[in-house]
Amino acid sequence: MLQLYFSPMACSLASRIALMEADLDARYHLVHLLTKKVVGDDSDFRGISSKGAVPVLVLENGERLTECAAVLQYIADLKPELGLAPRPGDPDRYRLQEWLSFIGAEIHKAFLFPTFWYKDDGSLAKPRARIEQTLSVPSAHLADREFLVGNSFTVADAHLTWVLLLLRPAGVDIAQWPSLVSYLARMQSRPAVRDAIATETALRKTLAA
Amino acid sequence: MLQLYFSPMACSLASRIALMEADLDARYHLVHLLTKKVVGDDSDFRGISSKGAVPVLVLENGERLTECAAVLQYIADLKPELGLAPRPGDPDRYRLQEWLSFIGAEIHKAFLFPTFWYKDDGSLAKPRARIEQTLSVPSAHLADREFLVGNSFTVADAHLTWVLLLLRPAGVDIAQWPSLVSYLARMQSRPAVRDAIATETALRKTLAA
Repeated sequence: MLQLYFSPMACSLASRIALMEADLDARYHLVHLLTKKVVGDDSDFRGISSKGAVPVLVLENGERLTECAAVLQYIADLKPELGLAPRPGDPDRYRLQEWLSFIGAEIHKAFLFPTFWYKDDGSLAKPRARIEQTLSVPSAHLADREFLVGNSFTVADAHLTWVLLLLRPAGVDIAQWPSLVSYLARMQSRPAVRDAIATETALRKTLAA
Repeated sequence: MLQLYFSPMACSLASRIALMEADLDARYHLVHLLTKKVVGDDSDFRGISSKGAVPVLVLENGERLTECAAVLQYIADLKPELGLAPRPGDPDRYRLQEWLSFIGAEIHKAFLFPTFWYKDDGSLAKPRARIEQTLSVPSAHLADREFLVGNSFTVADAHLTWVLLLLRPAGVDIAQWPSLVSYLARMQSRPAVRDAIATETALRKTLAA
């Protein structure tokens, strides 16, 4: 059985959504990212991945795969008939990779990530200056589209859904991008997405308690 | 013919290396990233891509593809017989995607990028604290390997080669990771890599002059 190392509402949420959309069973291991401990057996998460970051997907053969873009494509390809990723050879597969890269590198790491690093306005000015430019890209794209790639839900939507949920704790009001507001509501109306978020929201509260 | 919008020694260098390794002809358009002008006809680069970022690969059908991870995989797949990316279905394809994500999001955007943003030590402390952890990942991986994925050169090596070249202008001494020093020398001994770097180094001097 697949296993996913995750932290509640971290970017590994996208992997949980993908697994649930694909109706794939998995064992979930909760990681405390600050202490780098696996909750339950208190083992050192760095023994699982030297990166110390989630997601880590343990494959059926025991190998460990990291990085959202790779994990999400791997999960999607386990059930190609569901279309969670366009099949290799389909030009849209590169559009999926384009979005996974933009969400992971530009929205998450270059823009949202520093808003949690820094507390002073001087340092925060740089990432804040990127908000409009960065979010205008998916906002414009989704103005007349239901999904990021093609005409159905893909793992790129799982990824974007997660990163949009991160706007609020990052202190960014999503209301200024109406197409993103309606997109997020649309994604959250999907049973798998709703259940994944409900599960991790509850776990996060437990962890914080 | 393919067309590549690039800025000298920016991350689009990896795309040029991939094109040259694949022996693919392309028209190259130089972009001044600060002014967002296409050098030559002085047109607005934002008309080519609203992201205002390189690389932008114009495909044979006129569509524009952005993001290193997508552009590099697209170029590699044009010449599958060269093995610049493991073929779809090969488990190593996910390893390639894993490296492209780590190089693009973690090494480039979360660590090196802020070292160019910030001038004060307070703000720089955060990215500097990530240096060792981040670069230890490829350093350990390459201690007993010649290439990032499998036993031959892939576009992930083009990507890592570029980001390692960025260490010096970012003020990071690569000498502390001997496996990365020898890897970079090995990559730079490849004719396509050497020629790509020589071309862009010369163009960069012209641009700065």
